[in-house]
Amino acid sequence: MITGAFQQLTPRSVGGIIQLGGTILHTSRCLEFETKRGIEKAAETLASNKIDGLVVIGGNGSFKGAQELSKHADASIIGVPASIDNDVYGTDETIGFDTAVNTAVTEIDKIRDTAISHERIFITEVMGRTRGFLASTVGLTVGAEIILVPEVKCDRSMVVGKLEENRAKGKRSAIIVAAEGIGDTRSLGAEIEKDTGTEVRLSVLGYAQRGGSPTARSRLLASMFAEKAVKLLLRGDGDSVVGLREGKIGRIDIQKSSSIEKPLDLSLLELANVLST
Amino acid sequence: MITGAFQQLTPRSVGGIIQLGGTILHTSRCLEFETKRGIEKAAETLASNKIDGLVVIGGNGSFKGAQELSKHADASIIGVPASIDNDVYGTDETIGFDTAVNTAVTEIDKIRDTAISHERIFITEVMGRTRGFLASTVGLTVGAEIILVPEVKCDRSMVVGKLEENRAKGKRSAIIVAAEGIGDTRSLGAEIEKDTGTEVRLSVLGYAQRGGSPTARSRLLASMFAEKAVKLLLRGDGDSVVGLREGKIGRIDIQKSSSIEKPLDLSLLELANVLST
Amino acid sequence: MITGAFQQLTPRSVGGIIQLGGTILHTSRCLEFETKRGIEKAAETLASNKIDGLVVIGGNGSFKGAQELSKHADASIIGVPASIDNDVYGTDETIGFDTAVNTAVTEIDKIRDTAISHERIFITEVMGRTRGFLASTVGLTVGAEIILVPEVKCDRSMVVGKLEENRAKGKRSAIIVAAEGIGDTRSLGAEIEKDTGTEVRLSVLGYAQRGGSPTARSRLLASMFAEKAVKLLLRGDGDSVVGLREGKIGRIDIQKSSSIEKPLDLSLLELANVLST
Amino acid sequence: MITGAFQQLTPRSVGGIIQLGGTILHTSRCLEFETKRGIEKAAETLASNKIDGLVVIGGNGSFKGAQELSKHADASIIGVPASIDNDVYGTDETIGFDTAVNTAVTEIDKIRDTAISHERIFITEVMGRTRGFLASTVGLTVGAEIILVPEVKCDRSMVVGKLEENRAKGKRSAIIVAAEGIGDTRSLGAEIEKDTGTEVRLSVLGYAQRGGSPTARSRLLASMFAEKAVKLLLRGDGDSVVGLREGKIGRIDIQKSSSIEKPLDLSLLELANVLST
Repeated sequence: MITGAFQQLTPRSVGGIIQLGGTILHTSRCLEFETKRGIEKAAETLASNKIDGLVVIGGNGSFKGAQELSKHADASIIGVPASIDNDVYGTDETIGFDTAVNTAVTEIDKIRDTAISHERIFITEVMGRTRGFLASTVGLTVGAEIILVPEVKCDRSMVVGKLEENRAKGKRSAIIVAAEGIGDTRSLGAEIEKDTGTEVRLSVLGYAQRGGSPTARSRLLASMFAEKAVKLLLRGDGDSVVGLREGKIGRIDIQKSSSIEKPLDLSLLELANVLST
Repeated sequence: MITGAFQQLTPRSVGGIIQLGGTILHTSRCLEFETKRGIEKAAETLASNKIDGLVVIGGNGSFKGAQELSKHADASIIGVPASIDNDVYGTDETIGFDTAVNTAVTEIDKIRDTAISHERIFITEVMGRTRGFLASTVGLTVGAEIILVPEVKCDRSMVVGKLEENRAKGKRSAIIVAAEGIGDTRSLGAEIEKDTGTEVRLSVLGYAQRGGSPTARSRLLASMFAEKAVKLLLRGDGDSVVGLREGKIGRIDIQKSSSIEKPLDLSLLELANVLST
Repeated sequence: MITGAFQQLTPRSVGGIIQLGGTILHTSRCLEFETKRGIEKAAETLASNKIDGLVVIGGNGSFKGAQELSKHADASIIGVPASIDNDVYGTDETIGFDTAVNTAVTEIDKIRDTAISHERIFITEVMGRTRGFLASTVGLTVGAEIILVPEVKCDRSMVVGKLEENRAKGKRSAIIVAAEGIGDTRSLGAEIEKDTGTEVRLSVLGYAQRGGSPTARSRLLASMFAEKAVKLLLRGDGDSVVGLREGKIGRIDIQKSSSIEKPLDLSLLELANVLST
Repeated sequence: MITGAFQQLTPRSVGGIIQLGGTILHTSRCLEFETKRGIEKAAETLASNKIDGLVVIGGNGSFKGAQELSKHADASIIGVPASIDNDVYGTDETIGFDTAVNTAVTEIDKIRDTAISHERIFITEVMGRTRGFLASTVGLTVGAEIILVPEVKCDRSMVVGKLEENRAKGKRSAIIVAAEGIGDTRSLGAEIEKDTGTEVRLSVLGYAQRGGSPTARSRLLASMFAEKAVKLLLRGDGDSVVGLREGKIGRIDIQKSSSIEKPLDLSLLELANVLST
């Protein structure tokens, strides 16, 4: 939008890509777009190309930019939440979240083989930026003994206490799932090792969480969000973010979506705690 | 329940199995349970063992049996919907459905490699008994050109018409996803081959759809359903089926669940049709 | 080669495809190539385009055609064995074989979940055309109770005998891996069910075996075969098929490769029999 | 062997585990075994239990211990090479190596989605202890632009030179596969980022490489090694390590296996270099 590099896409342009990860658009963060001049250029490009509808696929950062742009442009703008972090207000789930969750779960299942065989404590750090959505869903679904997220304060003595309680019950290995947002997991591991006297290993699950063939659910969500976005554009219902709420596809104001912090569902953590007893 | 073969399970009994397919209980269909004598024996076993709560994990068949049993037994009975067919009224999704969908999607993605490379029509038959839940979700998420389900009449001329329309647009291969419930896919393939003059191949996706490591979503649903079932039992709220509705875990009467036919969401089929244009 | 539709490929043409199944060349069986006139046209096309080297990627059928072509053309011709059937003489393994084996193994592992849970006999039919290479490797590596290949006569009474022996030892489920080349597996299943009184289920593993992301080993083999093919072309060493023998990449005459039947390693079947005891 | 905790295994003991990662034996490194007293205790345990054959499954460390034990014990001792590092002299491949390679390849394929989409350089660190077997096979089979192993000196200026050469050819992303044995990949990444001006991301592929369902090839190798080990024991041919060489299963002296350093096949690195041009 800043350089005016447009390309017309037809249904054939997206043939045979539904099973691929990544983006054929090669979009990525654009610093110029965060400046007033960048936004103005983008608005001019839209106007001079007579673009009357714009779909922005991304997370909070993209939506903040979209909202800024909407102040300078006439085009209807719709946000489609796609992020492995699931931290977009107005939708229970973002495109890509289920894929990232399953990638992490598959990896941690493999790590558990080593944990169980050799009776060690494993800390597995998952992504999620500053939030714990990914960590809490992954932690529950791998049967983690402990889940650490930025939203819930948890000092080391509580972690060590739970580990020792488990050991007393006969559990000889443990999986700790930690959100990257909690801070330095390497030091945490060293401290737990010192406190428990049990070997602690750290695995930082990396960028694989951002790629890979999308799961059925991520594809389904993408399809339904896309349909809703087009419908909103057709009736001129701009400045919206589409989303899944109470099992239905709906919309909220983009201003609302990008300014409200999405709350973490703490009941998942409580359930995980019960199940790992 | 008929033979009185009980075994006490503790939290340790289910340690390290969250990632496994199948059932450690080795349960399967029991013909005797479909007789009056079988039901009475089961009720007696419950009474003599002082069992006051029973959780039945399964689909419609299991819940019909559970409901029958509840007429003869004092125990509170809760149904937990677990079925790859997703055909249980009262829940938007059953445990195992997401796993079966993803298994089918992964296989069809592989089949598409051959379809695209060699320009053929593939019919892939998925499970689902008499219903089209699995086929419609799988069909949409693999980007199938055509989806055939028992709930929607679709004569051969419509299928052939759509295939020829696609070919005119430049699509040289096609994936048809068919529910097992539509009948003889082998004959259908032969007829389409005759009508279109294009080679048609059939793949019946088999029992792999019933096994395999559960997806994160299936594990999550199982965890949340289990929690709800226990809560219902604790407050004596029997004769219930737990379920996911409007994004929340709730309950409905087991009598209602097993007597009402769950409607298929036709909007998925319409969306798939639009997307495969 | 018959229509003269050439396209120059550079290293960039194959960028980012190493992880994909299928072929970007969209080649498939060509009936015209099996006629004298087809071969002559191909030879003319090579000559008029001054092509002095040709790499044929495929199985026995492709190599027979290549050999025929070499009688009419001056170009050096090299065969690169790529087939999920592994039935090419002169190489211990073909490109794609390891991928197909792992796809089948992954599926049968999932089927085993159901087999073990519900105590049934499963027949899983794998590909392999008229040969048992795929079935014997898959059968051994899934721990099949019985493996049926065209190369070894095995009447039904032997199968039933082995199943009953297993049951006597306490094995309550069984996996039979059958090569498609043994004939009608559906009837076989019905007969075994009648003879044993145990439910028998059939899963025909389909075209997914021909696609999917290649395994590391298939990619490695492809890379090493390609290097050898180019080296042979550079030194004018045509009419060759490259292959893996005794752990090394070598070559044999294309005439020899396409005329000798590759023997099946029966020791795998014997080992499988010992291990499934 | 030190504590005398024996358990008799029958064929049924290993039923239904062929598809699982990890070890049901829960063995792990034992420091006491590295002392003279530990070895003597083990020898006494073998003698007092009349054990006349011992199979040691592991890598170089285990075989050094086994060899030491053989000086004090009468039992025949056979080593079966199982290690994801593939660093055992006397075998072209170890059990588990193919599994670890494929796990790493699957992950890096997913990382490449992000690399290609967003035009970055990714360093992916794989395991392998002090050796480059895993890195070189993984690097070649993911189509890495650069592979770094401890066996080949490669200063930073060469890496940067190759990256700039690629960029000049139009390649806008790059995957570097680095063996953990080359040292600090985090600093390396920071330096490359400074030198090239392109964002560099690091993913350390963790303990998942040690677990997971074994590939068909790892299962095949395990089956064939086991058979050979038993045959050697039956004919009293102890102090041996079984292995795959020139495509055949054979044996070498355990003393030789544990004292000679296995050479890395540099031709894989050269081929990878050619293919990534």
